[in-house]
Amino acid sequence: MIIGDNYGHGGDVYKNKIHLDFSANVNPYGTPEEVKRAIAESAERVSIYPDPYCGELRAKLAEHIGVPECFLICGNGAAELIFQFVEALKPKKTLLPVPSFSEYESALEVYGQEVELYQLERENDFALTDDILWKITEDTDLLMLCNPNNPTGQPIDVGLLFKILTRCRETDTWLFMDECFVSLTEEGSCISMFPQLRAGDKVFLLNAFTKLYGMAGVRLGYGICKNREILEQMCSIVQPWNVSTPAQAAGCAALDCKEWVKETKEKIFEEKKYLLSELEALGVDHIGGVANFIMLCGLPGLYEKMLEKGILIRSCANYHGLEEGDCRIAVKTHEENEELIKALKEVLGR
Amino acid sequence: MIIGDNYGHGGDVYKNKIHLDFSANVNPYGTPEEVKRAIAESAERVSIYPDPYCGELRAKLAEHIGVPECFLICGNGAAELIFQFVEALKPKKTLLPVPSFSEYESALEVYGQEVELYQLERENDFALTDDILWKITEDTDLLMLCNPNNPTGQPIDVGLLFKILTRCRETDTWLFMDECFVSLTEEGSCISMFPQLRAGDKVFLLNAFTKLYGMAGVRLGYGICKNREILEQMCSIVQPWNVSTPAQAAGCAALDCKEWVKETKEKIFEEKKYLLSELEALGVDHIGGVANFIMLCGLPGLYEKMLEKGILIRSCANYHGLEEGDCRIAVKTHEENEELIKALKEVLGR
Repeated sequence: MIIGDNYGHGGDVYKNKIHLDFSANVNPYGTPEEVKRAIAESAERVSIYPDPYCGELRAKLAEHIGVPECFLICGNGAAELIFQFVEALKPKKTLLPVPSFSEYESALEVYGQEVELYQLERENDFALTDDILWKITEDTDLLMLCNPNNPTGQPIDVGLLFKILTRCRETDTWLFMDECFVSLTEEGSCISMFPQLRAGDKVFLLNAFTKLYGMAGVRLGYGICKNREILEQMCSIVQPWNVSTPAQAAGCAALDCKEWVKETKEKIFEEKKYLLSELEALGVDHIGGVANFIMLCGLPGLYEKMLEKGILIRSCANYHGLEEGDCRIAVKTHEENEELIKALKEVLGR
Repeated sequence: MIIGDNYGHGGDVYKNKIHLDFSANVNPYGTPEEVKRAIAESAERVSIYPDPYCGELRAKLAEHIGVPECFLICGNGAAELIFQFVEALKPKKTLLPVPSFSEYESALEVYGQEVELYQLERENDFALTDDILWKITEDTDLLMLCNPNNPTGQPIDVGLLFKILTRCRETDTWLFMDECFVSLTEEGSCISMFPQLRAGDKVFLLNAFTKLYGMAGVRLGYGICKNREILEQMCSIVQPWNVSTPAQAAGCAALDCKEWVKETKEKIFEEKKYLLSELEALGVDHIGGVANFIMLCGLPGLYEKMLEKGILIRSCANYHGLEEGDCRIAVKTHEENEELIKALKEVLGR
């Protein structure tokens, strides 16, 4: 919960009067029926406490992704796990490429000591380059990466990923890799670190049900890590019942929705092509990336003008190195995307 | 979430094969239909993020209890708020009467410095006495109390409450008062500090929907405090979306269930009378207290023998000053209570 007006994220459909939300990067095809049914059915069991072991969910998840259950930690959304991880580690020095998702820095402000912001450059479309390797030193306790990155959608080159992993091992640096959007990229366009997980004692992979399964409201994220010590530490600093019964039920149901995932992803990337071609035609500067969102650049005033039309987009002005006029839009359904493009044309007078 | 076997609470129906759970103190009449319906309906809205301001819920809660909205903080269960409060305050020295709910000590182990355990005495049935006043000094940053206490059900005498409040003001000591069970006591048997809230700048009252409305699975607790600084600090150390959409919907619906609350409470205290008279007849030593649970004393082996019969009760052996053979039972429905008494008779051979 927050107090005051310091929200600073997309998806605030509560304080804004809108009819279309392009600011949150959630699967635009909603929540699978099976997941909704699981949540509804869980209402019959909410008088008892949630399973503190997340037993059924972790067993199913372990099978789904192919790791031992003891590598898995579940949380009240991926965001809770960011705070838990940083708090458990209490890193003396953290290397943080920016712009990126702001909750890393929020958690580091509370639980970290020194934070070295590493500014990604606009001339590279904010992609991570080999230069990062020089910044990882014996002093670096933690490197926090988001792959693909948010809000740019930029994936980390697979060769660079391996170099980073090697460098982190050499310098005894923890690698925290947020892969919440990997499942919302096109096959082969963004590589998960997952196959390398066993190689690294100090690798933590973050993932979420939120975006892919349209489950932002029930809060369910998970981490994969083979370091039992950090997982135990993370658990010791929160209550035992942080993952609710509806969330555990929803997660179990979601893992069965393989066909739904396949179909909606196909549609999302069809729609992304449509949006990109329209943006090209409009001559709008943008960074396409590989995820289910697109960053628009150099359009000061766009956020406000779209809001006047009842369309909420994500102003990126509060990201490090981005500026007024950089905005992020999610890929949504065809009807919604058409409406967005129509509004863009009107606003831009093109 | 927890890892390993260190749960240490009641309500673990997941690792125990049981058919009756007397170990969790939740309203035995389940969840109101309106609340279940609200959770089920919320499934249609979970693809968007929860309201980070908990706007509708806080507005309704403010009206329900008669405080300004800005006094209210909501959390992912009352347990999360315990951790948040202790972390926000980081008390140098805390005074903690025991036995009491163990999550206070868990939070203090992580975020507190010195913790002075104040042992309540069996000869007083573990009731808080005026002696506590001498322990509150200028060095005491925080006093954590549970009223009525868990697992003893003992209320704090109203005269003593006022003396504590005065003493805390004199010594500039924060008073954290867990009132999660006040709503599950008989009218007049346990007094909330609520009317005194405005008098104290350093008073935090904890409450929950969990027990009264049978909502343990959805996780919803709240705090009332007029000190904006501590509320802002508490919000700054967690993610913005910690209170899920189903929880917010369930909370709003619960506040309308006034008749249900009245009816179920009447039944609970009828049943408590039945249990107490049966325990008397059986000659079982017990502390009745004023809440929806009863502490049984001096019955070593009872926990295990009841578990063999598929009945889970709460062994209190892991509370400070309690011992093997001290157990807590919840008041449940008449049929269930009869079954408990029948099993007790068999086990005790009486």
